[in-house]
Amino acid sequence: MSQYASTPKTRLGRLPKRGSYDPAVIHPILDEALVCHVGFVIDEQPCVVPTLHIREGNSVFIHGSRVSRMLKHLAGGAPACITVTLLDGLVLARSGFHHSANYRSVVIYASGRPVEGDRKWAILDRFVESVVPGRLADIRPATRKEMNATTVIGFPLDEVSAKVRSGPPVDDAEDYDLPAWAGVLPLSLAPGKPVEDPLLRGEPPLPDYIKSYRRG
Amino acid sequence: MSQYASTPKTRLGRLPKRGSYDPAVIHPILDEALVCHVGFVIDEQPCVVPTLHIREGNSVFIHGSRVSRMLKHLAGGAPACITVTLLDGLVLARSGFHHSANYRSVVIYASGRPVEGDRKWAILDRFVESVVPGRLADIRPATRKEMNATTVIGFPLDEVSAKVRSGPPVDDAEDYDLPAWAGVLPLSLAPGKPVEDPLLRGEPPLPDYIKSYRRG
Repeated sequence: MSQYASTPKTRLGRLPKRGSYDPAVIHPILDEALVCHVGFVIDEQPCVVPTLHIREGNSVFIHGSRVSRMLKHLAGGAPACITVTLLDGLVLARSGFHHSANYRSVVIYASGRPVEGDRKWAILDRFVESVVPGRLADIRPATRKEMNATTVIGFPLDEVSAKVRSGPPVDDAEDYDLPAWAGVLPLSLAPGKPVEDPLLRGEPPLPDYIKSYRRG
Repeated sequence: MSQYASTPKTRLGRLPKRGSYDPAVIHPILDEALVCHVGFVIDEQPCVVPTLHIREGNSVFIHGSRVSRMLKHLAGGAPACITVTLLDGLVLARSGFHHSANYRSVVIYASGRPVEGDRKWAILDRFVESVVPGRLADIRPATRKEMNATTVIGFPLDEVSAKVRSGPPVDDAEDYDLPAWAGVLPLSLAPGKPVEDPLLRGEPPLPDYIKSYRRG
């Protein structure tokens, strides 16, 4: 698909060469990240709340309890900023000034609207499958009571941009002769050893989708 | 030290048992996390920007270019919300509804002020040491020109709270007989194999502080 539009909100003021409006850059970042940070304003006070998100097509979705203050506020169409950040590494330069981080981030400016009806059930199923692909087939289907207790809000990807830094440090020319090691220490979100629920009954095998879990 | 005060802003509306105002809970979360998400408001529009942070005593600090829009805005004392999130695991329950995430997060409401003079130099040195302990001794000291090009802003930890979920899934009583595996898949930010700068001169050894790097 074509690029997202650059708008006054999403135009990068600094380091514009790190920016992108390309869905081929933006979508994989949104899909790899599990957590987003949702910014909104109540009584002129900014609030930033972490939550899980998923992307489907040109929308991102968040969900939670029907009584959540944030979701009630956002369901009314209040302006939001949703930011997703993947920290890919620490960049070790020869000076403190040129130390940096490698990262991929996406910033979305949007107003949300609640998702209802069949679409809401579908999005909640996709939440499970997006966070742990393969999981949906193993669990009890949702009930109407659970649906009624849950709010889902979708946000269009209209005003959206990515910012990416990758690669080695960039030092001042005269610093390359300094004796320090320099380079990148990659970082990634890595799964550990699965911890069985102490209340597990029977001996269900550890699913393959847990054994081989990875993001990105 | 004693607890931080619970205020109308930091009082948890939902799941208050997950909340804490204890510095012994809050400080280690701030210290382990590398990235925070800073929320602020410009023309009624919420903005959320990821950046590195450090904590020293009862303050957190962020830094960046003197011409950064965010830092110029925050240097004037505009209200900010700084949120730090550590995703510790995926919680796999027997129903989608009870799927969850284990996490440790901190939310700070504060107005910042620029840090100047000797204190600014000290905080920038601490940035290097906080992100990569041991690194400072290996790099060229900062210059006055670099200092002048950099803004450092400190935020007091007054209105601050933590929220933590840990442990196994909590399912509906009648669901424990379902045959699905259930438990927690731990997640953590893990270092990969260090990547040497292609422009490295000589053969400086990989420092021990990189070989053994870990957070938390």
